[in-house]
Amino acid sequence: MELTKKDFIYEGKAKRLYTTEDPKYVIVEYKDSFTAFNGQKKATMSGKGVLNNNISSKLFKILADGGVESHFVKQLDDTHQLVKRVKIVPLEVIIRNITTGSLCKRLGVAEGIKLPRPLFELSYKDDALGDPFIIEDHALLFGWATKEELDKIKEISFRVNEILRDYFAKKSVVLVDFKLEFGKDADGNLMLADEISPDTCRFWDSSTGDHLDKDRFRKDLGDVLGAYEEIWKRISE
Amino acid sequence: MELTKKDFIYEGKAKRLYTTEDPKYVIVEYKDSFTAFNGQKKATMSGKGVLNNNISSKLFKILADGGVESHFVKQLDDTHQLVKRVKIVPLEVIIRNITTGSLCKRLGVAEGIKLPRPLFELSYKDDALGDPFIIEDHALLFGWATKEELDKIKEISFRVNEILRDYFAKKSVVLVDFKLEFGKDADGNLMLADEISPDTCRFWDSSTGDHLDKDRFRKDLGDVLGAYEEIWKRISE
Repeated sequence: MELTKKDFIYEGKAKRLYTTEDPKYVIVEYKDSFTAFNGQKKATMSGKGVLNNNISSKLFKILADGGVESHFVKQLDDTHQLVKRVKIVPLEVIIRNITTGSLCKRLGVAEGIKLPRPLFELSYKDDALGDPFIIEDHALLFGWATKEELDKIKEISFRVNEILRDYFAKKSVVLVDFKLEFGKDADGNLMLADEISPDTCRFWDSSTGDHLDKDRFRKDLGDVLGAYEEIWKRISE
Repeated sequence: MELTKKDFIYEGKAKRLYTTEDPKYVIVEYKDSFTAFNGQKKATMSGKGVLNNNISSKLFKILADGGVESHFVKQLDDTHQLVKRVKIVPLEVIIRNITTGSLCKRLGVAEGIKLPRPLFELSYKDDALGDPFIIEDHALLFGWATKEELDKIKEISFRVNEILRDYFAKKSVVLVDFKLEFGKDADGNLMLADEISPDTCRFWDSSTGDHLDKDRFRKDLGDVLGAYEEIWKRISE
């Protein structure tokens, strides 16, 4: 049976969720909205949802080919994906290959340092608290994840980094850093969730160093959608 | 030879440092000043330096008896200690037995939760950045400490917690949390440094729950010095 969009469940900053005929699956709709700085800066750009849906669908497929299980089932149309219904683990993972952004501001570290190995950071997913930066022991002691879940999250995150870094290198794009979220299905299986797009990754052009990601929106660099289109062009070739 | 106070080296928020005749030793003078919130709140209270010098000297001796090496050599008089000259590792360790303070504010966690095991947190010691909270990998990747140093710092910190928690329990005081700093001598030996006092520890009276520490200053609870005197009274008995 072809599953279709039924009841509205939830609206996030960049996506809407809907039930389907099967309780194990939901439909994600990618919106045209941009938000940054914990929702303080907002904009809408027509065509953004299509680009992120296309990019994210493609990247989830590449990860699946590399053995990384995610909630992604298939792309339904321009703005919709069918995904497994999961309960989101209240943690955000940041993997960094090169220093930039909040890391440099918080720790007074120079911009653009190529790290000798990827850095794994965690924050507690809570908008009201501004997604505070945490250590693994906070997640364990306050019940946000078990040791087994954290170990699996870390293993998957590094694997995602390896696959995507190599993939983007061939497209003349440097994968600088990215955010991941994870979810658990009804049977408790942990898997990658959310999206993987220029909203959640920093992409730098290998030759020019141009930012091909949401930093164009955060920093008012102009031609935001052009950068998203460029990423889609390179990975759809 | 009895070492004496020679040239002024450095003035911190609560202490001054002086050279001695021996380059391996310095003299610490405990000041009467209070600071909180990264130096934004300040006050001076006559007698505070004496109390913190007395308390800190006594606690360093108790730790030495328990096998914990520190920079402390001996108390010289009311406000002075002779200590080994060390280069401070730019990290602050926080050990927490009970949730309170910044942890609860940052992570939205309830106050007063007794943790099933002590929590070890690190921050990068940098006033201009507000001593940002970090993970161990930040310290390793940005060269603030080696893996061996971090392992030793963690081992000593937990040992300090065990010794002081048990010691204070006998004095009807709950050791809620505390900050530690570490230093390395000219030969590279890592050891506990700074001070251990109601400025750097949270002490709660076991029966009444009264705050016997710098929270009285931070939160304007009144009778700040009375609380420090009470701690000194209990540990000097």
